[in-house]
Parts: sequence; structure tokens; C-alpha cells
Amino acid sequence: MMQEPGEGVRTEAAGKYYQVSRPVYSEDDFGQAHARVRRRHKGILDHVRQYFTCDSKRAKNAVLSLLPIIGWMRIYRVKEWLLNDIVSGVSTGLVAVLQGLAYSLLASIPPWYGLFAAFFPVVSYFFLGTSRHISVGAFPVLSLMVGAVVTKLVPDEGPPANITEFEGLTMDEQRALVAASVTFLMGIFQLGMGIFQVGFIVIYLSDTLVSGFTCAAAVHILVSQLKFVLGLTVPGFSGPLSIIWTLESIFTQITKTNICDLVTSIVVMVVVFLVKELNDRYKSKLPVPIPIEVIMTVIACGISYAVNFKEKFQVDIVGVIPSGFEPPRAPNLHIFQLTAMESFPMAIVGFAVAFSVAKVYAVKHDYLIDGNQELIAFGASNIFGGAFNSLAASTALSRSAVQESTGGKTQIAGLLSALIVMIVILFIGFLLEPLQKSVLGAVVIINLKGMLMQVREVPDLWRKDRPDCVVWVVTCVASILLGLDLGLAVGLGIELITVVFRTQFPRCSVLANINGTDIYRDRKDYLSMYEPEGVKIFRIPSPIFFANIEFFRGKLVEAVGFNPLRILRKRNKALRKIKKLLKKGELQVTPSGLLPSGSSPVDESEDESKMEDLDLPTDYSDLPVQVNWNSQLPANICVPRVDIHSLVLDFSAVSFLDMSAIKGLKAALKEFIRVDVNVYIVACDMYVYERLVRCQFFDDEVRTSMLFVTLHDAMLHILEHKPDNGKLNSVSEKVFSDNKYDGISNGKSSLRSREKVDKSGGTKL
Amino acid sequence: MMQEPGEGVRTEAAGKYYQVSRPVYSEDDFGQAHARVRRRHKGILDHVRQYFTCDSKRAKNAVLSLLPIIGWMRIYRVKEWLLNDIVSGVSTGLVAVLQGLAYSLLASIPPWYGLFAAFFPVVSYFFLGTSRHISVGAFPVLSLMVGAVVTKLVPDEGPPANITEFEGLTMDEQRALVAASVTFLMGIFQLGMGIFQVGFIVIYLSDTLVSGFTCAAAVHILVSQLKFVLGLTVPGFSGPLSIIWTLESIFTQITKTNICDLVTSIVVMVVVFLVKELNDRYKSKLPVPIPIEVIMTVIACGISYAVNFKEKFQVDIVGVIPSGFEPPRAPNLHIFQLTAMESFPMAIVGFAVAFSVAKVYAVKHDYLIDGNQELIAFGASNIFGGAFNSLAASTALSRSAVQESTGGKTQIAGLLSALIVMIVILFIGFLLEPLQKSVLGAVVIINLKGMLMQVREVPDLWRKDRPDCVVWVVTCVASILLGLDLGLAVGLGIELITVVFRTQFPRCSVLANINGTDIYRDRKDYLSMYEPEGVKIFRIPSPIFFANIEFFRGKLVEAVGFNPLRILRKRNKALRKIKKLLKKGELQVTPSGLLPSGSSPVDESEDESKMEDLDLPTDYSDLPVQVNWNSQLPANICVPRVDIHSLVLDFSAVSFLDMSAIKGLKAALKEFIRVDVNVYIVACDMYVYERLVRCQFFDDEVRTSMLFVTLHDAMLHILEHKPDNGKLNSVSEKVFSDNKYDGISNGKSSLRSREKVDKSGGTKL
Repeated sequence: MMQEPGEGVRTEAAGKYYQVSRPVYSEDDFGQAHARVRRRHKGILDHVRQYFTCDSKRAKNAVLSLLPIIGWMRIYRVKEWLLNDIVSGVSTGLVAVLQGLAYSLLASIPPWYGLFAAFFPVVSYFFLGTSRHISVGAFPVLSLMVGAVVTKLVPDEGPPANITEFEGLTMDEQRALVAASVTFLMGIFQLGMGIFQVGFIVIYLSDTLVSGFTCAAAVHILVSQLKFVLGLTVPGFSGPLSIIWTLESIFTQITKTNICDLVTSIVVMVVVFLVKELNDRYKSKLPVPIPIEVIMTVIACGISYAVNFKEKFQVDIVGVIPSGFEPPRAPNLHIFQLTAMESFPMAIVGFAVAFSVAKVYAVKHDYLIDGNQELIAFGASNIFGGAFNSLAASTALSRSAVQESTGGKTQIAGLLSALIVMIVILFIGFLLEPLQKSVLGAVVIINLKGMLMQVREVPDLWRKDRPDCVVWVVTCVASILLGLDLGLAVGLGIELITVVFRTQFPRCSVLANINGTDIYRDRKDYLSMYEPEGVKIFRIPSPIFFANIEFFRGKLVEAVGFNPLRILRKRNKALRKIKKLLKKGELQVTPSGLLPSGSSPVDESEDESKMEDLDLPTDYSDLPVQVNWNSQLPANICVPRVDIHSLVLDFSAVSFLDMSAIKGLKAALKEFIRVDVNVYIVACDMYVYERLVRCQFFDDEVRTSMLFVTLHDAMLHILEHKPDNGKLNSVSEKVFSDNKYDGISNGKSSLRSREKVDKSGGTKL
Repeated sequence: MMQEPGEGVRTEAAGKYYQVSRPVYSEDDFGQAHARVRRRHKGILDHVRQYFTCDSKRAKNAVLSLLPIIGWMRIYRVKEWLLNDIVSGVSTGLVAVLQGLAYSLLASIPPWYGLFAAFFPVVSYFFLGTSRHISVGAFPVLSLMVGAVVTKLVPDEGPPANITEFEGLTMDEQRALVAASVTFLMGIFQLGMGIFQVGFIVIYLSDTLVSGFTCAAAVHILVSQLKFVLGLTVPGFSGPLSIIWTLESIFTQITKTNICDLVTSIVVMVVVFLVKELNDRYKSKLPVPIPIEVIMTVIACGISYAVNFKEKFQVDIVGVIPSGFEPPRAPNLHIFQLTAMESFPMAIVGFAVAFSVAKVYAVKHDYLIDGNQELIAFGASNIFGGAFNSLAASTALSRSAVQESTGGKTQIAGLLSALIVMIVILFIGFLLEPLQKSVLGAVVIINLKGMLMQVREVPDLWRKDRPDCVVWVVTCVASILLGLDLGLAVGLGIELITVVFRTQFPRCSVLANINGTDIYRDRKDYLSMYEPEGVKIFRIPSPIFFANIEFFRGKLVEAVGFNPLRILRKRNKALRKIKKLLKKGELQVTPSGLLPSGSSPVDESEDESKMEDLDLPTDYSDLPVQVNWNSQLPANICVPRVDIHSLVLDFSAVSFLDMSAIKGLKAALKEFIRVDVNVYIVACDMYVYERLVRCQFFDDEVRTSMLFVTLHDAMLHILEHKPDNGKLNSVSEKVFSDNKYDGISNGKSSLRSREKVDKSGGTKL
């Protein structure tokens, strides 16, 4: 029906047949037959030049990308979107107030600082952020990480860290200062990463790692909220194993539990849990999910005020919330120094979470977000927030879900939520004062369900992918026991090791030909295989680098059944002996080879001084005859047989080699070449090939002529130039020439000398 | 004289032709035609069972491997080897005494403790070690690392760490206790690693890493010896940047230099340097290298005693060396706690160096060493040594070179060297008392030449392999600035990241057919390429895992020129609209397709509530006609054209996929399949295939029938079942069936329905 260009490789009748007829190609032949286009690849300089080129268009784009608000404001559809944004903004604002209070408990700072986090960062993100749907503000995991630093520097018991600015401040003020400074520093890290365009580093936080990490974070959050739910006073522990000490402290005090707090918490938890389940079940039928947390908080607040829980049951309440904002304050450099190690993982975690949430909504609503601009936006927001005593900001999935599901279209909704928060801060904050902390704790705990449930992934991971499962478990356990920052570092380390590990012990296999085809598979896997005598095909199924080059060399020796270096040494020793015997006249050259002329015992002593020479290529130069190493040698000289004449390495899966690998591989190949085994490399990627050339892999012994386009090409070549049957690879056919390596180095050169001998050796697969 | 291989290829008729004729194979077809042998792979349980199986042979082997001395003692040739061993033992012993004194200066402990390191560990290694040539004892880098811990716990100025056992001890005794405890703990780590058979971890220390690390160590050693050479009193700094403070302290005191020490040092350095050069040059002519360090030490010792340098010039001398050994002492558990973090890298470094030196000699003299047994041997030696106040033991390359080059055959030589050391300790130690410390410092410094000269590798590394160069530089700089233990950790981290990085931004390429062959190459690289219309061949040149799956998806979208998810959504939206219009009667079904029945404006509002449904496969179920997406659609509905009907992924270099990659890949492929692009995976490794099956990669949409044995097989298949020209991949040919995905999912299923239409569609490549 339609004719395709291209030669007739196949007849019409052959319907589903694979027919090819073309010359056998080594890479060299192929390069001659098909000229390669010379392409210039961009160097570092080109990239730098390109980066610093400036024209009006680039300048405009730069401004637009730095202030994404310009972009989306221009397409803002006031009629359609504004109402949505207002509804969404109000709902989000209410949730933000509640979460702000609750998450500041995680950070061990007074509740109103959490409200600031729902205001300042939101305002600056409004101008700088590229996501239109996330709700910026406190994030529980991040708050907890801030809390760890805060309690480390200003512990409940014992003196605070020796910082001059702490003088004259109450403990709460000291803590707020620490939290604000950490937020500021975190912002600096994020801004720096954004400016240097290194936002891509979050890809190292794989799904598995994040899952394990957040599950551990949920455990930490749960434990940290227990004291509020039970109404206990637990000192804040910090550092590795702090979770154990916290739990120990809670259980030793368990009898002091405040029953009022406990009952309130349980009621709140049960109600919120049930309503959330209903929300989930009737998702499609409800216009907006029931804001049960907000409702419960308001009710609890009212009851607490009415019954006067504080006086009657000594419950811990939110307490006095000062009206209005605090004046901006310069961050403390001394705190920067003390918390730099902890702030960096916070910067990463905060950004990674926000970015992954933003990505979900960007895909859903079909717009683009820019990772580096997001870093800049969060960096600026945290710097801005930190200066105004705000808690570190990222995004909370639950709050963003509220903003998006109630119809928010742009960050106008975010701005309006900030407005609501502002109203609370300025005017009606006092209404929240009687709220029990246990209610906030209960709300936090019930929202952990999703994060904790991630543990259910583990059995599935174990079945499907052991290394991934190990990453999950190690990250989770380390994060629980060592703390979130150290745990993240350990998780990252394990994750990187996993990647190395996956390629470290590759399943090397010996291939053979599937009869009648050009297909090669593991010879153990199929029954009808053809493995030509004297040829080994070795597949390297992974990249080669420092961690597996030795493993691979070992496997190669195992596959061929002999150690080429040992053989080479034995041959060289034998040759030395033969030369000595010839000199002494104890060996004679006869037409049928070397024969002993006497039966004198052979000297067994080794010539130790020249051990190094034994690794050099066998030097036949001043020998009057040829030696066939696989035949019986005179004078009881014994050299192990070498049963293969060709070794084919399938490089199709070798996606890179590092310097250690190139060195090791070259050494290994030389050893084989020096014991007269022809080595072929097939299906080598062009970039790998170029790299080998650049790193001086090829020389007089290891030649480019060993490269073949496909495995089958190499096999056809080998079978055509196969030595006479029986005398595998014997040097007896060696033709003396000026080039002393000729005839023993590799395929191409040895075949040249043999071509004269067996013209009829062409064999077809 | 000889023919170039290239020519012969074309002239020698069919002899060098690549001819294949076989059926086109998808993996499924291939599996049917060639039955696979069912192989059972060993599980974890099998390995455990095998490990714990016990019979007399295994027991015997276990004993032999635990006590290697039995093995080599049985083949000991007394007549030939004993004399060699004696000569070697005496020479090595003299060097060991000198180095023991010198390296204890690095560890900031009194000199005689270094002598113990040349005795106790050697004795236990004699029984347990598998290497016959290394000289066990102090190793400068390791001594320096011990020194860092020692000065951290017992600083020159200020109080020592708060350890009860320190009470009543002099500073030197405290330091010796710390050094011994660290050695003991290091031994425990090594023994543990040996017992748990994890000796393989040293392969993570790549040549590049070790080179950068030892170069940094040499800088540290140089700086630490400057105070002895200049005769200054410099407090021992510890922790990051300590090298800066040390240098600062030296330069501020430079005017106080002791001229006598300086002159002695320079003389010693110049003489030793020159004689070493001579040794190197006349290596082949000298029976043994001149032991110039020993000679210079003896001379310097004599002069110092004769002139009474100590009194006259206030030089710092070795001072009183107590005769005899010290009684064994239990290590301090409190010190264990404080130094665990530092002892672990020491255990690694100590073993790694010893193992690499041992390996060199094992290869040279053709015997086997066992990494895990070496760990056990060094672990036991360090525990034994630590109990007797010895300094941490590994091996020094220079001393081992002496032992081997003077003819040492077995550890008998080592034992004899220990004997010499014992004689010095017990009887003639006092002779060394007048020796200047500056002489020891000078000898240490001059031996650093080789380690420092490794910096010359850097330019070469930069040219050949940027990532390796970065590893070198970062390891070296971090080790210099942060200290050796932290530096090693940083270097390891960078090295692991490098491996990830190499596969993270793979050079994906679009392939095309080389005319008239079955070979496919990057279409930009060659001129005579054939790229069938509507087919994209995408090569993934690396493993796929969490760090590059997103990158790869981006590249794929770039290569095909459209985002399949966007297309799918637009199609689904369009279809929804068409259905609505049909319902309203604004569209009519005519024989030539859908035609608008009126010109009423189309409602632009989006049905937001069901965004999620847009990602599902297009549901044509209740549509009376077929839609050809690439033709003009009615009612101004606009859906971007899809210009390809088949996408081929070349998996030949994909050596593994992790869970993130499998999930991401599956999502990506589904998106393509849902916009009616047939996806093929070719040249997939069998183990990767098995893994995909195990991880439920394949389902109703992503089917195993998409796998083809080679790229050419897939192309032949595609060209044969190609859709009618023009109507690329249009659903107009869709045959309705029970299976709603049939016809739009992938190659195999769509071809089945089309086979009826174009039987004659067999096309040639």
C-alpha cells in the first residue's frame, strides 16, 4: 500500500521477517562508511557567555520571572475569579489562624508568633511566588525542627546559651528571638540557593526518603503534643535520642494527667476524625468540606471561657495574646553561628515541601512554576518574616488543600487570608485566650493520620524493591532517634549509597547466540544456544566505576576460567628458562620444535630481581623458533593452557566509566591481549567511546580496531578469522615482523597475519 | 606490507557480510519461540543456610582462614627463606624504631609509646595476618588522627576532659591513656567489621579519594612537624580550621626559632633527600637501599650527646625513655564514648591503607590475601596493642618497602623486627635519649614528598574527568580545613554524589536508522539517516532512578514536541464539550463527521469540579461517531495535533530502575498511550524486565507486548502496521469492542484491529 524509502531489506512475502544484509562493521569500518557530522558541544565558557548575555528581551523576562505577580495579574479575570478568591481567602484565613496557634506550640514559642507566620511571609510571597494555589505559612515538620533548636538554645531547665542579647529577656522572648533568627537564616540559605540556581537539589529528596522522613516527623509531632493533650509539664529535650527522654518523662508523670485536658482532647479528636471521614466520603456531594477544626476550636473556646476551665481544672490555655504586631528586629548573628548546621536542613525541607505541593497544583491547573524563583520567594518571605519575629514559613498541605478546594484561583486568596489573620492579630485575638492548648494539640495529632499511615508502604516496598525499603526504614528510624536534621542527613547518605549499591554488584553474565538469529542472551537461560569454541562473550550490565571495577575484573577472570596475569607471568618465566637452556645448550632447535638435548635437572631458582619484567608482553625477539603454549613444552616447563582465543565484552549497558574504571579496564584488557586473547568491545555508546579516546584508553596494544558496532558483527568477524581448529590461539602461526606486538595484540592485527592462512574460514552464523 | 582491514570489508564478497533472516520478535514472541530455562535464584534464606552449614572440611577451612600462619608455615622453605627473613627483619626493625619514635610525635604522646606500636601489633599480626610482606606498626596519617583526638581531650592549655581516670596522672600519662583507648576502640571496630564480613566497604575509598585524602594528610603532618623543626612551642589545636590556628601560632612565634634545631633539620633533610634520590636512581645496582634515615639518626644522636645540644642550645630532645614494657591496662569506657565518632574513620583509614599495600605485594608475589581476615588481624592487633599502651597500628608504605626489598619472605621478618624493637625497648633505649626531636621531624617531613606530589595529578584529572577532579579537590581541601575525619566524610559524600551526578543528566538522544542497515544512531550525528514519519526513537543512555526520572520525562516531552498530558486533557475537555453540544442539538452527526447545526457561541466556562477525570483515558463510549483529533474539529474546538503514532524507547543502557523511576515511567507511558501513541520498549535487559513485572509495571494499558527484542524488530513491526498516510494515529479507524482500551493502548493491540484493514502494509526499511 505504501512504499517506504530505504533499500529492500526484505521481501513483501516475508511479511514479519527480520532480514538484514550489510557489511560486517567494526567501529572503524563504520566510521569510514558513514561520515559523522562534526558537532561542537558547548563548553563551560559558552554557557557562562550565554548566561551573561543581556538584551532587552532577556531583561524583560528576568523582571517578569522575578516578579511573577505581573504575569498573572495581567490575565486576572476579575469577574470570574474575584469572588472565588474572596471565599477561599476567608476560609483559609480561619484555618491559618488555628494552625498558626497550634504549630507555634511545636516550635515551643508563644502562640501569637505562629500567627505572624500566617501574615508576613504570605504578603511577600504574593509578589514573588509562582504558585497560585499554595497557602504559605507554618508547616508542622518545619515548626518542630525550629522547636528543636529553640529548646536546645533556651532549655526549660538550666541556663540558656551564652548569648549577650538574651540578657534582660524572659524565656519566651529569648525563644522568640531564637525562632526569628533561625527563620531569618533559613531565608538567607533559600535566597542564596535561588540566586545560584541550585533549586534542583531537591530532586535528591526522593519520594521514598520524603515518605520515611515525614513519617518520622509525624511520630515526633505526636510525641511533642502528648504533653499538651495530657496536660503535663515535660522539659524540652534536644539532640539525638531526645524522643526517648521525652517519652520517659511523660510516662513517669502519667499519673499526673489532667483529666479535663484529656477528656477535651479525646472529644475533639473523635469528632474531628469522624467529620473528616464524612468529608472524605461525601467529597463529591459537599460544596466545600466542613471546617470542623475551626468549628470545634470555637466551641471549645466558648466552653472553656464559660466554665472557666483554667481556674477550675488548672488546664493550660493559650493565654494573653498581645494586640498588634511587634516592631522589626535585627536577627542575632551569634544565634546564626550556633544554628547554621540546623538551619540548612530546614531551608531544604521547607522548600522541598512547598515545591512538591506547588507542583501538584501547577500540574492540575496547567501552569508552570519555577523552582529557583520559588526558592527566591520563600527566601525573601522568611527573611521578611524573620525580621518581624515570625515563625519559619513553608506550606501545609492541609491548608493549601482548603485554599484550593474552596475555589482559590490566585494568591489574591492568600493575601485575603493574611488580612483575616491581621484582623485576628490586631482586634479579636483576645477571644482566643481561653482556648485550651490541649485542643490545639488534639487538632494537630488528628491531622497526622495521613503522615503516619505512610508506614503501610513498607511491606509493599520490601516486596518490590529492597534497597528502596532500606532507605525508607533507615531514614525513618534515624529521623526518629537522631532527630530530624541528622536523620535527613543519614537518609540522604543511605539513598546515595543505594544508587551506588545498585550498580556495584552487577549480574555479569556470559552470553551465547540463539541459534539462527543475531540475538545473544545469557547462556544459562535458554536451551538452544550456540557458543563457538574459544570465544567468550561477557556482558557488563551496569556502568563501571571505582566501586565495581574490581568486582567486574574478578567476574571476568571467573568467566574465562583463568587469570591472564598469572598465565603471562608463567609464560615469561618459561621463556626465560627456555632461553637460558638454549644458551647452555641443554635445549636444541629441531624442525619439530624444541627438544631437550640432555636430561640434566632444570634449575628451579627464581630470578627474583626482575619480577616486574614478568608483567611485560612476552618478548620472543631473540628466539629462533615459535612456542606453542598449549602444546607440551620441553624440560618439564609447565604453563597452563589458554582455551579461548577471543573475548567479547558487551558494553551496551555501560553508560559511563570513571577514571578508576578506565585504568582498571585497560589493565585488565592488556593482560588478556598479552596472553594472545583477542579482545573486542561491542555496542559501545558513542559518548563513552569519545571519553575513552579522550582519556588515552587506546594505545599500541589496546586499539580502536577492537570496537565493533554490534555483538553479531564482532562474532561474524571472529568466526571468519578463526584460527585452525584445535590450535587455539597458538603462537606457532606467528609471522615475525617489525612490530613486536603484531600477532598477539588484538583481533584486527592478528587476523591480518592469518588472513593468508585460512581464506576459507568464513563461517556463517 | 600489510593490508588495512577497512578495505577487505567491501571487496571480499559475501565473506564479510552481515546477513540475518529471522522472524520479527517482540519479547512475547521470542519467549514463545525460545523457551527459557527456569532457574531458581538463591534467596536470602539459602545464603544464610549455606553460611551456617557445617562439615569437617568447612571447619578445617575456617580454622585455616582464621590462623593463616598454619598455611604459610607448612610451606616455609627454611633453607632458602630464613636468611632472607633475618636480614629483612633486622633492617626493618631499625627503621621501625626510628619511625615509632617519630610518629609518636604526630600523636602528641611520649616517644616510647610509638615503639610499643612496632612490637605488640606485629606479634599478633604474625599469627593472624594473611599478608606476608607488610610491616605492621605506626602509620603517620593514623598517628596524626590519634593526635587530633589526644589534643582534643587533653589540650596543652586549659583543663583536660572531665574523666575520672585522669586524676593523679601527668599530662603525658593522660595522653597515653587516651591514645591507647582510641587504639583499643579502633581495634574493636575493625574486629567487628571483620567478623561481620563487611571488609568490602573499603572499595568506596576510590583511588582519587585516597589520593586527595593522603595529600591533605601530608599537609597536616608537615604543619604538625614544623614546631619540632623550628624548635617552637605550639599549643595543639583541634577541630575544624585547627591547621589555620596552628600556622598562625607558628608565624607569630617565628622569631623565636631555635637556630640549632633549624640547622640540624635542614642538614638532615638535605642529606636524606639526596641519598634517597641516589637510592632511586641506582635501585637496580644497589643490593639494598642505603638506610640513610637510620644512619643520620645515629650520627645526630652522637653529635647531640657529644656537644650536649640540650644544655647549650635548649633544643627539645627525646628525653628519658623508661626501660621495659608497661603493664597492660583496661581501656577507659568514658574515653570510648567521647571518641567513638573519631575512632571509626581511623579504623577505616588504618585498614584501607594496610589492605591496599598488602594487595600490591600479594599481586607481586602471587598469593591471596583475605580482606575480612585482615580486618580481624588488625582488629585483634589493635586491641592487643591498645591494652599494652601501644599507638594505633596499620602499616607504613616506606617501612613495608624496606621489609620487602631487603628480601623478606614471610612475617618471620616482621617477628624479627619486633625482636629488634624489643631489644631497644628493654636494653638500649637510653642511647636514643639525646636525639633531637627536630631530627625526627625532619625525617618525617622528607618522607612526605611522595604524598604531597600527588597534587600533580590534578591538572591531568581535570582534563580527563571533571567529576573525579572535583572529588580530589573537595576531599583534599575539606580534609585540610575540617580535619582528617570530617574531611574523609565529606569526601565520601562528594564521591557518592558524583556517581549519582554522572547518571543524573544523561545525554538523551533521538535515534534514526542508518540507511540500509539495522543500525540506529543519534540522528544529529550522521548525514544519511532515515527517520520514518510519525516515529520517534528515544534513547535513554543511563539507569533511571529518583534523581533523573523527572529530567528524563522532560527530555522525552521535548523530543516528541508535545506534552501528552496536556493533549489528553484538551481532548477530554473537547469531548465533554462535544457531548454537551450533541445533547443540546447544536452539533449533528453527519456521514462526513460532526457538523455544527447552528452558529451559537460556545460556552467557555470550565467544569472545574471534575478536573481529575480529565487525566483518565478518553472515553468514547456514548459517542455515536469517531473523532479524528488531527482534523478540523467543529464548534471552534481546538486540540493540538499529535504528529507521531509510535514512540520507541531504547532501554539497552538502562541497567536498573528504582521504584520512583518505575512509577514515573509508567505514568509517562500511560500519558502517551492515552493520546493514542503506541509505545515500544526495546533491548530491555532480562533482569530489568523481570523487575518491571515484579513491580506491577504492566497492566491493561502498559502491556508486555510493547517489549521488542531489538530496536530494528520494533521498527519493522511499526512500519508494517503503520496507519494510513496522513491520518496519523487517528481514532477514526477505531474498532469498537468490549475492551474499551483496545485499539488505543499499544502496538500489539492496535495492530490486531488494523491487520484486517491493511494486510499489504508490509513496508521495507
